[in-house]
Amino acid sequence: MDISRSPLAVPFPAMPPIDGVTLHVARAHYKNWDRCDLTYVELAPGTVVAGVFTRNVCCSTEVELGRESVTGGSARALVVNAGNSNAFTGYRGREAVERIMGQVSAYLGCNPSEVLVSSTGVIGVPLPLDKAEAGVAAALGSAECSWEEAALTICTTDTFSKGVTVSAMLGATRVTLNGIIKGSGMIAPDMATMLGYIFTDAAVEAEFLQACLSGANQRSFSCITVDSDTSTSDTVLAFATGKAGNAPIASFEDPGADAFMAAIEDICRQLAHLVVRDGEGASKFIAVSVSGAVSDDSARIVGLAIANSPLVKTAIAGGDANWGRVVMAVGKAGQPADRDRLSIAFGGVWAAREGLPLDDYDEAPVAQHLKGSDIDIDVDLGLGMGRATVWTCDLTHGYIAINADYRS
Amino acid sequence: MDISRSPLAVPFPAMPPIDGVTLHVARAHYKNWDRCDLTYVELAPGTVVAGVFTRNVCCSTEVELGRESVTGGSARALVVNAGNSNAFTGYRGREAVERIMGQVSAYLGCNPSEVLVSSTGVIGVPLPLDKAEAGVAAALGSAECSWEEAALTICTTDTFSKGVTVSAMLGATRVTLNGIIKGSGMIAPDMATMLGYIFTDAAVEAEFLQACLSGANQRSFSCITVDSDTSTSDTVLAFATGKAGNAPIASFEDPGADAFMAAIEDICRQLAHLVVRDGEGASKFIAVSVSGAVSDDSARIVGLAIANSPLVKTAIAGGDANWGRVVMAVGKAGQPADRDRLSIAFGGVWAAREGLPLDDYDEAPVAQHLKGSDIDIDVDLGLGMGRATVWTCDLTHGYIAINADYRS
Repeated sequence: MDISRSPLAVPFPAMPPIDGVTLHVARAHYKNWDRCDLTYVELAPGTVVAGVFTRNVCCSTEVELGRESVTGGSARALVVNAGNSNAFTGYRGREAVERIMGQVSAYLGCNPSEVLVSSTGVIGVPLPLDKAEAGVAAALGSAECSWEEAALTICTTDTFSKGVTVSAMLGATRVTLNGIIKGSGMIAPDMATMLGYIFTDAAVEAEFLQACLSGANQRSFSCITVDSDTSTSDTVLAFATGKAGNAPIASFEDPGADAFMAAIEDICRQLAHLVVRDGEGASKFIAVSVSGAVSDDSARIVGLAIANSPLVKTAIAGGDANWGRVVMAVGKAGQPADRDRLSIAFGGVWAAREGLPLDDYDEAPVAQHLKGSDIDIDVDLGLGMGRATVWTCDLTHGYIAINADYRS
Repeated sequence: MDISRSPLAVPFPAMPPIDGVTLHVARAHYKNWDRCDLTYVELAPGTVVAGVFTRNVCCSTEVELGRESVTGGSARALVVNAGNSNAFTGYRGREAVERIMGQVSAYLGCNPSEVLVSSTGVIGVPLPLDKAEAGVAAALGSAECSWEEAALTICTTDTFSKGVTVSAMLGATRVTLNGIIKGSGMIAPDMATMLGYIFTDAAVEAEFLQACLSGANQRSFSCITVDSDTSTSDTVLAFATGKAGNAPIASFEDPGADAFMAAIEDICRQLAHLVVRDGEGASKFIAVSVSGAVSDDSARIVGLAIANSPLVKTAIAGGDANWGRVVMAVGKAGQPADRDRLSIAFGGVWAAREGLPLDDYDEAPVAQHLKGSDIDIDVDLGLGMGRATVWTCDLTHGYIAINADYRS
């Protein structure tokens, strides 16, 4: 299938090296293609890991084993297989993942649980043992590659490679955070991202890293949706090598903790946005901001009801400021809302206030806004102080073309 | 907009008259069109009414007032406006509905609350008082029309008129039930149907009629979905004139109660299926049967997660037996499920059993089944005795074309 680049794509940024992180890619030939499809990241001894995973109860072996590894808190390597998700493959799937963990841990002389494995692609086909083994062997012996090559190698149906770099000052020490991510369909919260990886040279303890990642996830990956579907493999991992030499951070009371948390949240939000920008068939990036809800959680649920509504998403695709469909989506969210207090704006222009269409509503600037590629929908429920922003894309013919044709 | 007839359309059936029910239609010119868009149904004195309504909290005035009328339990008339939903129109919308209720009740010499009003179409534009008044006046003075004309007049974006007739023997008395319904998009449970009306000559008490309708709704209108969206106006009303002369039924202990309940459930299910068959852009009618759940409710929620999944719906549109997407949808439903007990079949052929793809899975008969227009997906969760069937349609380019272009 030849999918052209998303019109919302952004260029891959220049990404600095991270001390303690080396990247490699190889051809495992998981599918009948001639591209790199296995990514191997080697991490210096002492690296700590945190993770958030899909809530899909039919999750993959990789997710099950990943949760165990994250509980241990230390990591030496990451292997990402592209083209085969290895999900719903029973004991045969588990055997393949354990084989990779054994192969890499023998090479590094570490515990198998310190080798994190992810797989993405078709569900229901066990990862072939021989191809995985040969692929890992090739990666172990290969030269280092760039961040962009690694970002490209974890992709499947993505139309562009996705990376973000940010930095933070922890006291007098500058630390770097690099993230790569893949995902374009089957994206919805209660774990939004398909596969995302964040690497930093900061010195932080595993529990603190987990607290930062879990918190940031609530306001980033859990606030994006492409098609309301949730993959069986969704995973975001964060690795910290500690090589920057800052005074290690163990809790939010420690110096630099706030700056690090802000950097994690920043990189998570930027990575999440990149996934939406590659939403299958997306032609517009939509930010839905809900205020006046009874709580932040309630605002997020209302925002997701709007962002997941096929009728809202198709209206935006058609450049139609159809606020009636937004009303409908608010009402079906199952959250406290009062029709007669509801206000709705597109591109900052109120179309309806407190339950009534505005008599002097000027559609011209709204129509102009909807012609652009970045769309803002604001909803004020008029009830309380809760607020949240969620991000999605429009629903177009492209989504249908990709998903009615893409095959297993 | 010119939408051709749904490929899943069925012919309008021959429908017998119902004693105590007379049908009229008129042109209210709610939109700039030259078609009948106001339906007036006159009901004999003594008619009882029951209703189920949208759970959308941003519901229309018609729904609010309809709930009150149903509580009263008696009805003399039904007015249905097509082209304007009158939803989210504040006090101006309420004034229009009350005006219609007053106009008709003055004509019939009944209580205004005995006049039920529904409106369907664009949200956010108050129903114009003058057009409504002239339309009602024209309908009151018009000749009787046929069931098909009435069914056609309540339609908006529907591509075919929808009617069902069934009968039941209550003791020695045959009673007739006729139903008409409209709806093609913005269809999802917790009230599935947009506007549906059932008329019968049976003699039943209002509370019993309500119990029958509420029960049937759980296994019919609440089990269909086109796009997961829920309208602000969804309404199903049932009217019983009592003219058949059977011994009145007051409770499920009375003779004939079971037969009547079965007939109500039958007509509700048939009407619900017609809505799915006119799902926007639908090319395939999909029945998702879930068994082995921990409860019937749980089975229904899992079924709806599958039926609402854009990835499942596009796979069916593409004729792809992509059971991996079904696994994903089961897992995201938030209900008890165990990946390693899950079995999935298309067209009665198991693709996966107890968590593993079948080695001898023969895709040929499945591919043949998926070329047809009626698709069966069976899911066995392997946990308990709960079961449910839900119905939906596929997601096609037609849905996008209709909804990215349809305007307010």
